[in-house]
Amino acid sequence: MIRANENYNKLKASYLFADIAKKVEQVQLENPEKQIIKLGIGDVTKALAPAIIKGFHDGVDEMADDATFRGYGPSPGYEFLRRKIAENDFQKRGADIKADEIFVSDGAKCDAGNFQELFATDIKIAIPDPVYPVYLDTNVMAGRTGEFENGRYKGIVYMDCLKENSFLPELPDEDVDLIYLCFPNNPTGSTATKEELKKWVDYAKENKALILFDAAYESFIRDETLPRTIYEIEGAKEVAVEFRSFSKTAGFTGTRCGFIVVPKECMIFNSKNEKISLHSMWDRRHSTKFNGVSYPVQKAAEAVYSQEGQAQIKAQIDYYLNNADIIRKSIKSLGFDYVGGEHSPYIWIDGKTRDSWEFFDLLLNKASVVCTPGAGFGMCGKPYIRISAFNSLENVTMAMERIKDALRGDQA
Amino acid sequence: MIRANENYNKLKASYLFADIAKKVEQVQLENPEKQIIKLGIGDVTKALAPAIIKGFHDGVDEMADDATFRGYGPSPGYEFLRRKIAENDFQKRGADIKADEIFVSDGAKCDAGNFQELFATDIKIAIPDPVYPVYLDTNVMAGRTGEFENGRYKGIVYMDCLKENSFLPELPDEDVDLIYLCFPNNPTGSTATKEELKKWVDYAKENKALILFDAAYESFIRDETLPRTIYEIEGAKEVAVEFRSFSKTAGFTGTRCGFIVVPKECMIFNSKNEKISLHSMWDRRHSTKFNGVSYPVQKAAEAVYSQEGQAQIKAQIDYYLNNADIIRKSIKSLGFDYVGGEHSPYIWIDGKTRDSWEFFDLLLNKASVVCTPGAGFGMCGKPYIRISAFNSLENVTMAMERIKDALRGDQA
Repeated sequence: MIRANENYNKLKASYLFADIAKKVEQVQLENPEKQIIKLGIGDVTKALAPAIIKGFHDGVDEMADDATFRGYGPSPGYEFLRRKIAENDFQKRGADIKADEIFVSDGAKCDAGNFQELFATDIKIAIPDPVYPVYLDTNVMAGRTGEFENGRYKGIVYMDCLKENSFLPELPDEDVDLIYLCFPNNPTGSTATKEELKKWVDYAKENKALILFDAAYESFIRDETLPRTIYEIEGAKEVAVEFRSFSKTAGFTGTRCGFIVVPKECMIFNSKNEKISLHSMWDRRHSTKFNGVSYPVQKAAEAVYSQEGQAQIKAQIDYYLNNADIIRKSIKSLGFDYVGGEHSPYIWIDGKTRDSWEFFDLLLNKASVVCTPGAGFGMCGKPYIRISAFNSLENVTMAMERIKDALRGDQA
Repeated sequence: MIRANENYNKLKASYLFADIAKKVEQVQLENPEKQIIKLGIGDVTKALAPAIIKGFHDGVDEMADDATFRGYGPSPGYEFLRRKIAENDFQKRGADIKADEIFVSDGAKCDAGNFQELFATDIKIAIPDPVYPVYLDTNVMAGRTGEFENGRYKGIVYMDCLKENSFLPELPDEDVDLIYLCFPNNPTGSTATKEELKKWVDYAKENKALILFDAAYESFIRDETLPRTIYEIEGAKEVAVEFRSFSKTAGFTGTRCGFIVVPKECMIFNSKNEKISLHSMWDRRHSTKFNGVSYPVQKAAEAVYSQEGQAQIKAQIDYYLNNADIIRKSIKSLGFDYVGGEHSPYIWIDGKTRDSWEFFDLLLNKASVVCTPGAGFGMCGKPYIRISAFNSLENVTMAMERIKDALRGDQA
């Protein structure tokens, strides 16, 4: 008899953004005239930059001629792309990452979800709360947690990120083996200094732990003293893997391309305490279960690093950061506490006494604005909502006006 | 201490096609003047058809304008594509598959590798020998096998495909829960009739087993009486999942798009013997660990189903089938036994007393032709090599001339 992986039973009923989509669809169905503005899911809205479009078209044109056609590509990605990534995203910032330590993928969600396969089932995992649900759900599916009780999975070490600790996870009291970190943070928008990250690198080295560092939002950092990659921290290459994506950096949410950095120095251990190369393990996983990213997409990603590409994507990020600024000012003027929005597209807003789904419903019904309820990111998110700066300036401005009206009405 | 998934230790040293690539690279390095012809890895060589290129460019153009730009798409793929697939590949052949039973992916390799995650660790798996290595390796990684001993993984039920049974797997003597089948077969090129597939559907229903049916090569079938999908068999929707790919059908090996069919009737069981919807489980897996296929790639895939697209890809497959015909005739004239090449791009050749790597080395060194050694596909492949029809007519013709010369010399 064909039996199911019963770890799936432990998962909460459904994926956060699917729940939100259903609620929005329902309201739109009942009120077809409403112009709903979506500031929920972190999805970009601006067109791909002209330099990227040119690279993309050029790639497609190569596929149109037998002489230049490309079939299966190299499993870790084309070297033309991996070399540009290593130079621009790492070496220029003093981080000694080489092209052969980079694996190109179809996005950071897949990488963040798949990477846990390389580890034993009974390792101890530390995860921030609130958190991007994928880190947690994929470990639940793999059987690394107990049941879901009182809002949390048994067996996971949750690191509470609250106002009291400036939304920065603190070193766990108990020994942990695998640590998920994300800066600039999704969902809170908080950022970490080099000193902050060094604390984690030191902890990992001391405890033979591994850090999975999600830097999907690094391009929103405008303060040159803040680290944009964990490899700006000395020793990080021995204890950290980094997830990256073109989704937020260059508007690739619908184009699909990301990459993962697995340094060759990074070692994990077998049951005899012998060192195992994490790079070799991921290489094996990647070549066995994945067949590379579409060639024209890799050409489009390469164009991100051209001079025009860099200028164009900086202008896009600036545009979203200006939106974030407008959101922060509006929220402040309404008397709410918030974090984020400075080096991040996300603003994490304290709803005061309001439950986050209640706040979500209020904004959806009274302002026709979609946010993300903080509870979807964990217990610590319960009093919060996340508002995203990914939309047009016009829509963001209109959404803020509507929220002001709705909340004034609500408070009256 | 961060510990490794030690199931990886059980894997044989490396992935078959990586080994071949290294050998070829070495020969090329030592003999830079040699024009090596690759008939090894099943990679297409003809450019994408004009209709597909147009769809691809159109998709890229939509990404260039804020008004038509697409961010994250629906997790199972765009409905415009899923509907075309359901109509053309299934409903037109009398198989009642609906758009919402299709999940678009970046290729059948990923799907075939990932799908096993939905099952308990201790199920019994039946796998043909020879076989596409991904089915086996991904189950090894997940801990569903014992050690590799005498050429086989303990705990797996191998179904020998030999001359004696016309290279068709036979129903296993012991109870199995999960059965991998592939027709037209990779690597042997053998095909299965409806009666043959019905035998498996009946077995699965009787034994509450599940069939994972790989139909990546269905477009090579030219005999209208042969099934192109397992859903042409009555009752298959209850017990079978089907993997499909645009790679071989439409030359998408470097473009990356495939899909999986998970019928809503298809049920598996929990430890209380209660039914679980496989469709719901995959939907959860897909939405949690995957973020959809690039929008322009889905537009390119949609164009496969246009009138021009269908005519153009049929001409491409005919071209490769003509190559296969040339290979078959040459091999026959040399006095070798073979199977395949009729409704398949692969010809599976009995090397007689030669070991397959020895045969591979001989063809590489004496004819500068790359084939795939059968041993890479399993113990039963040891006396065989696989030759692929994916190359230009000129190269295939030249390769056959060279092989004739080399083997004449070898036999002299």
